[in-house]
Amino acid sequence: MIDYRSDNTGRAAPQLLEALIRANCGTALGYGADEWTAALQQRFSELFETKVRVFPVATGTAANALALAALGPSWGIVYCSEAAHINTAEANATGFFGGGIKLAAIGGEHGKLDIGMLGEALAGILPGQLHKGQPIAVSVTEATDLGAVYTIDQIRAISELAKSRGLKLHMDGARFANAVARLGCSPADATWRSGVDIMSFGATKNGGALCDAIVVFAPELVDGLAVQLRRAGQVWSKMRFASAQLMAYIENGLWLDMAHSSNRIAARIAGGVQEISKARLLAPVEANEIFLELPGAAMDALEADGFQFYRRSKTLARFVCRFDATEAEADALVMALRRYLN
Amino acid sequence: MIDYRSDNTGRAAPQLLEALIRANCGTALGYGADEWTAALQQRFSELFETKVRVFPVATGTAANALALAALGPSWGIVYCSEAAHINTAEANATGFFGGGIKLAAIGGEHGKLDIGMLGEALAGILPGQLHKGQPIAVSVTEATDLGAVYTIDQIRAISELAKSRGLKLHMDGARFANAVARLGCSPADATWRSGVDIMSFGATKNGGALCDAIVVFAPELVDGLAVQLRRAGQVWSKMRFASAQLMAYIENGLWLDMAHSSNRIAARIAGGVQEISKARLLAPVEANEIFLELPGAAMDALEADGFQFYRRSKTLARFVCRFDATEAEADALVMALRRYLN
Amino acid sequence: MIDYRSDNTGRAAPQLLEALIRANCGTALGYGADEWTAALQQRFSELFETKVRVFPVATGTAANALALAALGPSWGIVYCSEAAHINTAEANATGFFGGGIKLAAIGGEHGKLDIGMLGEALAGILPGQLHKGQPIAVSVTEATDLGAVYTIDQIRAISELAKSRGLKLHMDGARFANAVARLGCSPADATWRSGVDIMSFGATKNGGALCDAIVVFAPELVDGLAVQLRRAGQVWSKMRFASAQLMAYIENGLWLDMAHSSNRIAARIAGGVQEISKARLLAPVEANEIFLELPGAAMDALEADGFQFYRRSKTLARFVCRFDATEAEADALVMALRRYLN
Amino acid sequence: MIDYRSDNTGRAAPQLLEALIRANCGTALGYGADEWTAALQQRFSELFETKVRVFPVATGTAANALALAALGPSWGIVYCSEAAHINTAEANATGFFGGGIKLAAIGGEHGKLDIGMLGEALAGILPGQLHKGQPIAVSVTEATDLGAVYTIDQIRAISELAKSRGLKLHMDGARFANAVARLGCSPADATWRSGVDIMSFGATKNGGALCDAIVVFAPELVDGLAVQLRRAGQVWSKMRFASAQLMAYIENGLWLDMAHSSNRIAARIAGGVQEISKARLLAPVEANEIFLELPGAAMDALEADGFQFYRRSKTLARFVCRFDATEAEADALVMALRRYLN
Repeated sequence: MIDYRSDNTGRAAPQLLEALIRANCGTALGYGADEWTAALQQRFSELFETKVRVFPVATGTAANALALAALGPSWGIVYCSEAAHINTAEANATGFFGGGIKLAAIGGEHGKLDIGMLGEALAGILPGQLHKGQPIAVSVTEATDLGAVYTIDQIRAISELAKSRGLKLHMDGARFANAVARLGCSPADATWRSGVDIMSFGATKNGGALCDAIVVFAPELVDGLAVQLRRAGQVWSKMRFASAQLMAYIENGLWLDMAHSSNRIAARIAGGVQEISKARLLAPVEANEIFLELPGAAMDALEADGFQFYRRSKTLARFVCRFDATEAEADALVMALRRYLN
Repeated sequence: MIDYRSDNTGRAAPQLLEALIRANCGTALGYGADEWTAALQQRFSELFETKVRVFPVATGTAANALALAALGPSWGIVYCSEAAHINTAEANATGFFGGGIKLAAIGGEHGKLDIGMLGEALAGILPGQLHKGQPIAVSVTEATDLGAVYTIDQIRAISELAKSRGLKLHMDGARFANAVARLGCSPADATWRSGVDIMSFGATKNGGALCDAIVVFAPELVDGLAVQLRRAGQVWSKMRFASAQLMAYIENGLWLDMAHSSNRIAARIAGGVQEISKARLLAPVEANEIFLELPGAAMDALEADGFQFYRRSKTLARFVCRFDATEAEADALVMALRRYLN
Repeated sequence: MIDYRSDNTGRAAPQLLEALIRANCGTALGYGADEWTAALQQRFSELFETKVRVFPVATGTAANALALAALGPSWGIVYCSEAAHINTAEANATGFFGGGIKLAAIGGEHGKLDIGMLGEALAGILPGQLHKGQPIAVSVTEATDLGAVYTIDQIRAISELAKSRGLKLHMDGARFANAVARLGCSPADATWRSGVDIMSFGATKNGGALCDAIVVFAPELVDGLAVQLRRAGQVWSKMRFASAQLMAYIENGLWLDMAHSSNRIAARIAGGVQEISKARLLAPVEANEIFLELPGAAMDALEADGFQFYRRSKTLARFVCRFDATEAEADALVMALRRYLN
Repeated sequence: MIDYRSDNTGRAAPQLLEALIRANCGTALGYGADEWTAALQQRFSELFETKVRVFPVATGTAANALALAALGPSWGIVYCSEAAHINTAEANATGFFGGGIKLAAIGGEHGKLDIGMLGEALAGILPGQLHKGQPIAVSVTEATDLGAVYTIDQIRAISELAKSRGLKLHMDGARFANAVARLGCSPADATWRSGVDIMSFGATKNGGALCDAIVVFAPELVDGLAVQLRRAGQVWSKMRFASAQLMAYIENGLWLDMAHSSNRIAARIAGGVQEISKARLLAPVEANEIFLELPGAAMDALEADGFQFYRRSKTLARFVCRFDATEAEADALVMALRRYLN
């Protein structure tokens, strides 16, 4: 069996679990008042080249929904791509944590939010039109839910539009490592230097185990979020075990090494696929996901051969490369595709 | 320094972290569709001698609030002890997750809910009195927040009263292990056989690391809770790492061994304290917590001597024994108290 | 000035205000326990030929949002037309009252929900897919927000599809009178006999003053809704003044007389418009609203001539006929349009 | 039958209904953009001697809950008297509209919030103690729910304490007219000059019909509240009919005349009661309510004689005087009490 189902079907990087064990010594104050969590603030501030506040949370859904709920009142509207995880796969957690915040889905290519359509949507709501609710934020997913990556310029353009309307900018970085690895830029350039106010910093999909994080760039958001997270049951009393994981995740560039690795395997598959005339990629493969249009019969055959993947529709298959996926696995997939599509 | 601040300042039991590492092999479906989580259902069902559904969650606050929110509509009233953690220390998480559920605090001794007062409170709201909201549940904390333990008969009496009004019974078992260790009964007797419909099953305070659990005895509560947990950001995509911890926690009676140990140390301290004529315990020491009335000067002196503990008021100190507290630490505390109180 | 801006810019029918004054005698129990409200239940049950429960509420937004929130848990999805008032003009009140209920907008013609698209959307969410939330209801707007009217067969087809998935059916009847007047059917046929479980029964837009109502056909929804309305601040303590209005509204067919009148004026305008070759109606004029594509210059000219109406976009104008609109006003509008469009 | 059950069992002042009828002319923009609502802002600003914003709402519950929800985030704590209507009789509407805001009940005499106890409660929550939630506001009920009236000095003292902790001050003025009539002060002195930031301005209990109002003194609260009210279904599209009622209510001092009248009748009864040695008043009669300790047999006898009132417990009866209660009714009650208590 070769598993391309999801990046969350995989193992954690051993370094994260070893860090857990190393943190298991002595006593420490609870709820984040420990030295590991203090060090985490320091390390992430270095990583992002500015003072940030990091809140470890259990899941990406918690990170997204609580970050977005922090951006405005409950009658707010958050604009995101139609394909965004917050819109399609989190059971409206943002509406729940936000007390009725509304997600407005905007079209676009490759899972990106089209800036022209965003502009039109914003132009359709004037400040005094109370019956429409009021825009509060834009959320971009980096890398996107279709495996593409916004360029820095694209993020900046969206940010400028958002800021011109007084909106905050959130980044769902469930696969932020893959995006940074692809862009070859600094984490700072990909985020606050491009206008991001708050982000969901994913680790789980890229070798993490039991935590992701919210990273706050806009200091005015910190105090309220701290209470809200506590109340939301997202503040571990033994926080050191979460903070230690996140520190190990970024230590010595581990996170980017893992992302480079999964990106590389995905690119290898994409390269092979492009030589198959009947294969069609739904979006450029710029991170670790491959969305491939495939006849049902080809999907059946792949499964019979032991390949695991998700069927997104009758003719769309998703293959996700984990940090520990191998070239041999990639080549096996390409070879099988070649067999079934020619 | 000898740390009596809280059971969450302590280490995790090494067995739990080792289980994490053992679980780090191969691929597995996400969000609880893995074999560890399936096994967890089986093991907990054996432990409780009935088919239960176990949902690992990140924190006790999440366990309590989401369990209670599952028990009725948002206009519900949940009755609990004045001293209950849900009432004093969770930032009204129940009100938040429950969309406005109201906690009604009932007096009583030693952190217990007084059944007579509960009866009076319930008698004060007739079904048709819409302006008062409607009772939906009673929550008991076992062991209590003042270190006492309800007897089985007490739980049953509360349960009967609750059921006679059509209310569900929730147990906040943040220190359930300590209570079971004290009672010497089966987990089943302490819970569903005494009328408990749903419980917060604590692990963190008793050698756990990053998860507690909701255990559901009333099957009709399962399906809704499953969606709500997902939306609440409490369903890890790599759930195996949570389930493996919880299995290790109960394997070979580890959880009860740890609770017996911390209970024993607390009892040793309580025994020593009772011989000090000027010392007064606020409640019987039946679990791992000691609430001691102390003059401020005595608290200062203890701290100067390197004892760490929480001041609950100017004259009330709390000492909590962790699973790895030692007899020597207990004796040191008693000796110091003897010094300052005579 | 001739006002076509909205049906809510108009007067109330004098009969409703006179009923208010007649009700102003003697004392009566509060919060709906009065004889007017009891009579209201009786009259509406007669009107609908079945036992219904009527809850007067202040506004159509309250009626819609609270009715929908009563149909399922907070992780529910409610399907409605893209053009539906609940989706475009109530500031996500449904998400707010429903604790995060999500509206899923479905395309279709003339403000109707396309049954094929609804079927596809429902097929896209399987019961176990917790991350998608769970469908709970379908909402149809009758008459639609573009001035068309669902036929009974269309309502029934949607109802059957909804019921086959276990969903409830809500009708936003802000202009229900206009729809019934158009259909020439009984209120029963237009609602519960066609599968409607709960409806927002509008009065304000058709000669009402200060209240609309929720009419409940499915008895299991009554008790919860009664508490929720109280808590939502929608239960007047002097309820008799609301109930008296609603009784006057339906007495001797007043509501249908007014709707017939506004429909007739709208049809007169539509008839005139159809003879203007350059004029294009966005939807068939089946109730009291006319959506007309118009060049901006024509809109400017109409306004200069003293016609008041809403610009829905640069090229779309909405004209609404009130119950007291006159044939002379209609003819004046048609004549002006003829002037500017030829 | 003589009805002392409640002030909401009574008639509306005819002037309010006549104003409704006068407002029923011509067309006017919806949702408060009409000339009556504009005039209402002007009149209330004159009445309060400062620029205020008035939002008519359907009920006192809506006024209280939405005003309080506007005062801070959803993890806020609002302090109020144990006897406060928001705490005992609104089904936790504040928790609902506030997304989990918690009411903390403070003891005190005669339905007043004891300032010493309030100070202790506030001292018990330090700013960094996230697990306790965070205080956001104090709510005082004027007149109180036991028929007493805070003096201006008492309001000011509470205000100063609240402001010293950064809290907002809300006044539940369901019987504000009765309090102002009693105090003989200006509405300004009773509210914003004494530190009130926002108030629920009651009309219904004092001759109103279908609306109360929120009056906002702190301008920064206006914009958010405007959206929230719309979404909460509390903004009538034909707002003129609400605004006209409220204007008539204050025109030529009608509201105070009515309050003086009901206060006077209550005082007359209280005066008579004080001469009955066995009768005991629960609180000083300073507004229009009388709380009287009475043996059950006396209550039975009163009812048999045709007096209507509420039994608050087996030995506590409440008598409420409406604006149109008469001296003869008062004397009849006193005479009956004399009969049964001697």
